Amino acid sequence: MELSERQNKIIEIVRANQPITGEDIAQRLSLTRATLRPDLSILTMSGLLDARPRVGYFYVDKGVSNLTGEHIKKLKVADVKSMPIVISEGQSVYDGIVTLFLEDVGTIYVVKDGYLSGVVSRKDLLKNAMGKNDLEAIPIDVVMTRLSHIIYVEEHTSVYEAMAKIINYQVDSLPVVKKVITDGKELLEVVGRFSKTNIAKLFLEMAEGK
Amino acid sequence: MELSERQNKIIEIVRANQPITGEDIAQRLSLTRATLRPDLSILTMSGLLDARPRVGYFYVDKGVSNLTGEHIKKLKVADVKSMPIVISEGQSVYDGIVTLFLEDVGTIYVVKDGYLSGVVSRKDLLKNAMGKNDLEAIPIDVVMTRLSHIIYVEEHTSVYEAMAKIINYQVDSLPVVKKVITDGKELLEVVGRFSKTNIAKLFLEMAEGK
Repeated sequence: MELSERQNKIIEIVRANQPITGEDIAQRLSLTRATLRPDLSILTMSGLLDARPRVGYFYVDKGVSNLTGEHIKKLKVADVKSMPIVISEGQSVYDGIVTLFLEDVGTIYVVKDGYLSGVVSRKDLLKNAMGKNDLEAIPIDVVMTRLSHIIYVEEHTSVYEAMAKIINYQVDSLPVVKKVITDGKELLEVVGRFSKTNIAKLFLEMAEGK
Repeated sequence: MELSERQNKIIEIVRANQPITGEDIAQRLSLTRATLRPDLSILTMSGLLDARPRVGYFYVDKGVSNLTGEHIKKLKVADVKSMPIVISEGQSVYDGIVTLFLEDVGTIYVVKDGYLSGVVSRKDLLKNAMGKNDLEAIPIDVVMTRLSHIIYVEEHTSVYEAMAKIINYQVDSLPVVKKVITDGKELLEVVGRFSKTNIAKLFLEMAEGK
């Protein structure tokens, strides 16, 4: 939203003198209250100013936040996710490291019979690589984070919720899964990856107006 | 910006029928052109609709992008940066890995005589840890990315530019430096760290209206 010169002046006045009545603002600009009315409604409707009856105008500046918040609450993980990089239980830690470098990702997902069974991060691999072990002899499932401890999202999860999970659980990425019920058991099919890189790219695209 | 029910209806009509004249929109809503005028000005001024003379209204939706873009072009790296985690040249790869786990970061900066000389990522460490080397015997400066290849930002760099660098150069974080001229030589003092985590946190805070 691009403000006119007069609208910017109104905001300046309100910020410096809040609460301030419409009459007072008009006086400071040597304008009539009627002339200001459309500007004040636009600023109020856009969330930049708040008007309280019998008190006056306040500066709010929820403009950016509201719009950004609304947008990423509507956007779904499915809209921005990347392809998941997976390896199978039974493959080695060495295989895991090679996959991580080949695919240039920070996290790989481990599957068993096609369904998610674990997550392996660069840190998990680093911790094990340090031990001077024979990395080709250690199965990946020994070093992975197991299913019960995995934070995941689904395709219909909002980008907002997924971002909050990444920050709150301090992880670099989340597997995107589809829940499948087989023989009364819930299994997770890995259908994507949602990472801090997806977040940064989305933020940049929004800022560039794409 | 929260739209009224009528404004949302106008946007729906424009999206489905663009370009469409104000007269046509009014007819579809069984309202007069005069009643619609304030709504149409607000939608045009907020960047959601574009009006071309003798053609009609178009749907634009630059609202979110413009505001987000303006905001992070004004915000400086200094406003959101984290503390840098540094080790000194001469310390070992083992020290580097320990520091990385203790401080729970993805990248550490290497300094020589107090000034930036290199950057070491989890991947650099992992690559070396795999080789079954004696990690305590390898100096960190052997595995680091050297100064001439380091992408950095300064405190006054905009968050927008810093984000673009992270995406374009495919790195997880950037050192924040202060340039110091000593004996006609430019040296870089490390004063912070700007990472994908900072970006994700900022995005979430903006969305939450903080």
